[in-house]
Amino acid sequence: MKHWLLIVATVLLALPAAAEVSQTSVPGADTPTIQPDRSITFKLKAPEARTVQVAGGDGLGAGPFNMNRGTDGVWTVTTPPAVPGFHYYWFLLDGVRVNDPASRTYMGYGIETSGVEVPEPGADYYALRNVPHGTVREQWYFSKSTKQWRHALVYTPPGYDEHPRTRYPVLLLQHGSGEDETGWTRQGKAQFILDNLIAAGKTVPMIVVMDRGYASSELSLSTLDKLRKSFGAFEEVVIHELIPTIDAAYRTLPDREHRAMAGLSMGGMQTLFITLHHPEYFAYIASLSGPVLPDMRGARDIDQGFRDPFDSQKAFEGAFADAAGFNRQFKLLWLGVGTQEPEVFRDSIGRAVHSLQSAGVHLVYFESPGTAHEWQTWRRDLNNLAPRLFH
Amino acid sequence: MKHWLLIVATVLLALPAAAEVSQTSVPGADTPTIQPDRSITFKLKAPEARTVQVAGGDGLGAGPFNMNRGTDGVWTVTTPPAVPGFHYYWFLLDGVRVNDPASRTYMGYGIETSGVEVPEPGADYYALRNVPHGTVREQWYFSKSTKQWRHALVYTPPGYDEHPRTRYPVLLLQHGSGEDETGWTRQGKAQFILDNLIAAGKTVPMIVVMDRGYASSELSLSTLDKLRKSFGAFEEVVIHELIPTIDAAYRTLPDREHRAMAGLSMGGMQTLFITLHHPEYFAYIASLSGPVLPDMRGARDIDQGFRDPFDSQKAFEGAFADAAGFNRQFKLLWLGVGTQEPEVFRDSIGRAVHSLQSAGVHLVYFESPGTAHEWQTWRRDLNNLAPRLFH
Repeated sequence: MKHWLLIVATVLLALPAAAEVSQTSVPGADTPTIQPDRSITFKLKAPEARTVQVAGGDGLGAGPFNMNRGTDGVWTVTTPPAVPGFHYYWFLLDGVRVNDPASRTYMGYGIETSGVEVPEPGADYYALRNVPHGTVREQWYFSKSTKQWRHALVYTPPGYDEHPRTRYPVLLLQHGSGEDETGWTRQGKAQFILDNLIAAGKTVPMIVVMDRGYASSELSLSTLDKLRKSFGAFEEVVIHELIPTIDAAYRTLPDREHRAMAGLSMGGMQTLFITLHHPEYFAYIASLSGPVLPDMRGARDIDQGFRDPFDSQKAFEGAFADAAGFNRQFKLLWLGVGTQEPEVFRDSIGRAVHSLQSAGVHLVYFESPGTAHEWQTWRRDLNNLAPRLFH
Repeated sequence: MKHWLLIVATVLLALPAAAEVSQTSVPGADTPTIQPDRSITFKLKAPEARTVQVAGGDGLGAGPFNMNRGTDGVWTVTTPPAVPGFHYYWFLLDGVRVNDPASRTYMGYGIETSGVEVPEPGADYYALRNVPHGTVREQWYFSKSTKQWRHALVYTPPGYDEHPRTRYPVLLLQHGSGEDETGWTRQGKAQFILDNLIAAGKTVPMIVVMDRGYASSELSLSTLDKLRKSFGAFEEVVIHELIPTIDAAYRTLPDREHRAMAGLSMGGMQTLFITLHHPEYFAYIASLSGPVLPDMRGARDIDQGFRDPFDSQKAFEGAFADAAGFNRQFKLLWLGVGTQEPEVFRDSIGRAVHSLQSAGVHLVYFESPGTAHEWQTWRRDLNNLAPRLFH
């Protein structure tokens, strides 16, 4: 009898009986709504508009989708079933990209952008649950190299304030291009993923530092040279400003054995760039959906760099040339990608994984089934990665 | 010679020589720009639009302002000199209210809204300066009365982590209607105001708790009865959930002599409502631009309530009837308003101030010269109020 109740309860939880308003909507909003089959209904009142479309992240479907005008001046459309997770979206109102007034906004594509959250049946690892919660804190610090005040977010684990003599390992966790330091908590729910893993005893309590991944005034990153210069400016900040700031302001274990760096997409590229330059600072490395650029010199397009062959002897200035030495030095190399990501990502990461494994480099490779170059991939990545850190 | 340099430097700092991009814009944006005379130039690319206007908060000017289409499809307008400070704004694109893609967004009017920051010459009390910084922390807590997870922001003063045996007084600080718990830090710069005051030795280090001022599912607050019910739900949260949560999670001095409540507009109304019901919890009370509702019973419109006469004997169920007793019990009653606020605010607050002072109730009345029902008024208010707390 109890089993039967449990099964019914599980099914009820897994399949919402009716359309529900997205968790990303502002209080009181009745749109967008997600149907039980994960199709999404969007709505915008624009009586004078001639055309209204909705478009968004890959997981939303092909798009843009034409919306239809009702007699009340409200335009609506129901898009095909979406991939679970968080998707950026926007309206094209007579061709102008605008946000949905019903949605909270999230930093993506370099601007504030609407978002919709499609529940994944049975997945509660990123939910706000009744477990002890860590705290996300704002950290301002003055950066001499960029002559700017910089803003980072810092997760301290449950118990941090209650145990003022305990010191913790540190994970630096970076967002992707066009996003900022708020991405991992607002879109990624990193704080809840860590809370839930720590409560389940699957992950050691750690401090997570989410910094803003831009440090260069050079905005165009079209060539490998420009990208390397931009990453170099961020490397300077991370090594000589961010890490000392965090080690001074928080009770860290300030050595390489207790420091990890991870990042998604551009943040994954930055992670490989910075950690492989500074093995004295990091023992754990993770690149989440980060195209692997084995050689960042020259004025070639970045897209060409993504297609470079990966030679484990020469890549990253020879960082992997001595596989046995690399395996002794680093406790973890973690690479991941979603199966629905664009081919250029999957190919670049796949080539690196194949070449490194063939050369005897130890690594963990994680594929997120059915998810795109979007946050559901990176939530799953963090959930897989965090338990492997600091053992 | 040195004096002369100083004067020139001051003038140069006070009068920007050229238009500057608003501090509220996203990185890389070149708009909106503020001219030295505080006029603001707005810009939006919308080649197919038929009309584009810009409108916003009172301090921006009358508006909406018609924008003019250039041959490149970019619409522009320069609005009249604005009041210094933070102003919400939006475009009307063929009649639809949309955000400026160049702007960060801020929770105002119940939706994410663009904002522009007009510098006030010589005012650096809310600037991010090279002084010790406190930390803003996210606090989640489960509310039994509303059956929801609630989200508050908590400022801990500089030195909080370094002195794990020190306990601090607490200021509860509330936003206005249509805003949320992020308003006081993102729009108000409360954390920098406190940092600067504490660094100057003008204010005692304190914890500042900024909660979300909504606790009722009743969204319509059109009548006094409905408003009272909504405020009552928030009162229940503040007294029986928020205060115990904060006293458990932070090193507070958990008595009335070390607890203050302040709020702006709706938050000021909530402050009077809650503190006057619970003198056992609060010794300091401040209402910033909060219309004073002496009697919240009945089905009358709120606007009518704003125009009620203030009888110091009967108002707030007789809380002020014994002036000498009130003066002994409370260490501070603080009321403020901006001189450019709408008449209904100034009249309501002015009547209460006059009546209370005539009856012998001690209070501090602060007028912000030249500012509207906007954040520059409330920044000045906090800068005036905080030094008066906890002596």
